[in-house]
Amino acid sequence: MSEHMVERMPGGITAPEGFEAAGVACGIKTSGLDLALVRSTPPARVAGIFTTNLAVAAPLVVTRDHLRTSQDTAAAVVVNSGCANACTGAEGLAVSRAMAADTAAALGCPVEQVLVSSTGVIGLLLDAEKVRRGVAVAAGALGRDGHAAAAAAIMTTDPSPKETAVRVHTPAGVFHIGGMAKGAGMIEPNMATMLGFLTTDAAVEPALLQRALKEAAADTFNAITVDGETSTNDMVLLLAGGRAGVRIDENEYATFVDALRTVCRELALAIVRGGEGATKLIGITVTGALSTTEARQAARAMANSPLVKTAVHGGDPNWGRLVAVAGRAGVGFDLTGARVAIGGVELFADETVFAEREPAAAEHLRGTDVTLTVDLGVGGDARATVWTCDFSAEYVHINADYRT
Amino acid sequence: MSEHMVERMPGGITAPEGFEAAGVACGIKTSGLDLALVRSTPPARVAGIFTTNLAVAAPLVVTRDHLRTSQDTAAAVVVNSGCANACTGAEGLAVSRAMAADTAAALGCPVEQVLVSSTGVIGLLLDAEKVRRGVAVAAGALGRDGHAAAAAAIMTTDPSPKETAVRVHTPAGVFHIGGMAKGAGMIEPNMATMLGFLTTDAAVEPALLQRALKEAAADTFNAITVDGETSTNDMVLLLAGGRAGVRIDENEYATFVDALRTVCRELALAIVRGGEGATKLIGITVTGALSTTEARQAARAMANSPLVKTAVHGGDPNWGRLVAVAGRAGVGFDLTGARVAIGGVELFADETVFAEREPAAAEHLRGTDVTLTVDLGVGGDARATVWTCDFSAEYVHINADYRT
Repeated sequence: MSEHMVERMPGGITAPEGFEAAGVACGIKTSGLDLALVRSTPPARVAGIFTTNLAVAAPLVVTRDHLRTSQDTAAAVVVNSGCANACTGAEGLAVSRAMAADTAAALGCPVEQVLVSSTGVIGLLLDAEKVRRGVAVAAGALGRDGHAAAAAAIMTTDPSPKETAVRVHTPAGVFHIGGMAKGAGMIEPNMATMLGFLTTDAAVEPALLQRALKEAAADTFNAITVDGETSTNDMVLLLAGGRAGVRIDENEYATFVDALRTVCRELALAIVRGGEGATKLIGITVTGALSTTEARQAARAMANSPLVKTAVHGGDPNWGRLVAVAGRAGVGFDLTGARVAIGGVELFADETVFAEREPAAAEHLRGTDVTLTVDLGVGGDARATVWTCDFSAEYVHINADYRT
Repeated sequence: MSEHMVERMPGGITAPEGFEAAGVACGIKTSGLDLALVRSTPPARVAGIFTTNLAVAAPLVVTRDHLRTSQDTAAAVVVNSGCANACTGAEGLAVSRAMAADTAAALGCPVEQVLVSSTGVIGLLLDAEKVRRGVAVAAGALGRDGHAAAAAAIMTTDPSPKETAVRVHTPAGVFHIGGMAKGAGMIEPNMATMLGFLTTDAAVEPALLQRALKEAAADTFNAITVDGETSTNDMVLLLAGGRAGVRIDENEYATFVDALRTVCRELALAIVRGGEGATKLIGITVTGALSTTEARQAARAMANSPLVKTAVHGGDPNWGRLVAVAGRAGVGFDLTGARVAIGGVELFADETVFAEREPAAAEHLRGTDVTLTVDLGVGGDARATVWTCDFSAEYVHINADYRT
């Protein structure tokens, strides 16, 4: 672990060798880029995690089919925004299959090596003709410099594109990991997540690739929430192309996961910062829990509490709402031992209220990065952190008027 | 069942014989009535349900103690708003005990026959002196006409007081049930509820009284949600004084529960209508579930979904969000058999979208009473209804600025 170094670098999914990307506008959205294409040369080994929502959208059905047939390899990923192609029945499934077939034809690869993904309005059939035209244009525009357009093309209500890349120095050589993500609403991953696409030029052993993605996602993509909703289209894919000539085996696994976690965390926190109507990033750490599961459950309950989120939005150090959520979270909790701190300022401990410290806590809440810490008071040693954003009137406006 | 008649009547908790009430201002809130007193002559038999939140507030500790000591009887209930006296440790407990002792002294009854209740800001110590003065004034103001002032005195962010009463005609004679409630935020009862106080002049057998309250609460107070939060101070008390000379035994039980449910439902729906920032009452019925528990769980997940609540607020018949919640609700669900209707207008069934019907559904959403129906598509025969309100920017404003 000590011999490697993870270094931030500019760029996104094309930072690793062997990946090209493009983002184009094909009219699915009324304006802006709405179709992204990523190509891997040679075809990459793929790990994926998918929504746990039982109302699975058509593109996820197709992508999983293709991964089975291709034995977890892919030459391309094609993604559209503006239409989730979810709840669209057999017709929707046909469009997702056509989207893959068009891409395979344009790139000259087997159809099962094309993975498809969609995000946007549910219950709207994806327009196959628009997709076909978009794929043709995107295929001609592929390049190493296409990462930014691709990251922009997968946005829905996101205020800005999310992409990042790292260079990893190891004794065996240098490799890269890049990524892009979208997500602003309907965000509460549950062993799955929003849309995220990750690339690397390391060669990773098949069993390790999926394990690394799950492990890195557990405390990044799966530790964020915007509104407690799990989407029908959530998907994160990690493509490992191998062009860097660095092989990741058990010995190098820790290095790889560490770098992958850096990329995932940056994208995950960017999703929360860009949450619908968000003005603040809130990190909620629960300590003293009886188990990590209980710590996560309590932290997530607080992160989804409209009363906690509106208090932070209003700059009110209302620690009582955190206690109230802890008490109803269904986890071991003891009021007599509970402690609450806001920005490191302890406001409640040993059943004593430190009201005189509230101005210091309120000062912390005026910043854009907020830290809340709650000890459950039952003397456990487990802890967990979940990230969320504040709840503003703007969230209501966005979601009351989403389709109009 | 067919021989009785439940008739609405004016008034509230003093509609039954033997009950007097008062509501006074004692300065706990910066303005308005903030202390309510209810007296039962003779002392009443009491049933109660209490919060499941583990951060139990001081008044609940005292009330439960007193019910144990008095063997579930009470001569008075004293309630303040503006301060929950929760998370206030030993000092808070002493104030709640003093509140009961002051009331007992003013009314000349044993202290264990006084039940206390508080609602308002958490973590603020209740001012014992203000309470003492308030109790003295309230004791002198008790009367049959004090019901409205009492209902007003228990309000926090409620837009209006909530009280109701019924007259029940039975072969054995006439009895009455009255009630008042408060609740606008931090409302998601979980085998317990917000503040509710119910009175009757029927004489109810002890075992039947608690059973009736639980049964009536199950599909009224426990079937509503405003924001998914369960408070530290939730309490519903039912006082049966017996002055009407009608005895409720197993034979009359169904009649009594029926009338009690009428009162509870009216108060529960009034709480939702008066939810913080609410402009619409939303009834969500889930059908085709594998069990009643699963039906309730799915309906509650929809009722707490910010995306569903903002869509209704915006008048958008966005049925896709209901499907998405059904899919993540942790219950049996099959997209191919699922159906969604808004105001009786079916928008999705057999994986087919009826977009042409959306204007009719949108028209329904312009009203103040909204009905959403979701069939989970797994062929079960269980169903459940949960009521909630829409989610407006006003909710955010209220809760961002609650303490300022």
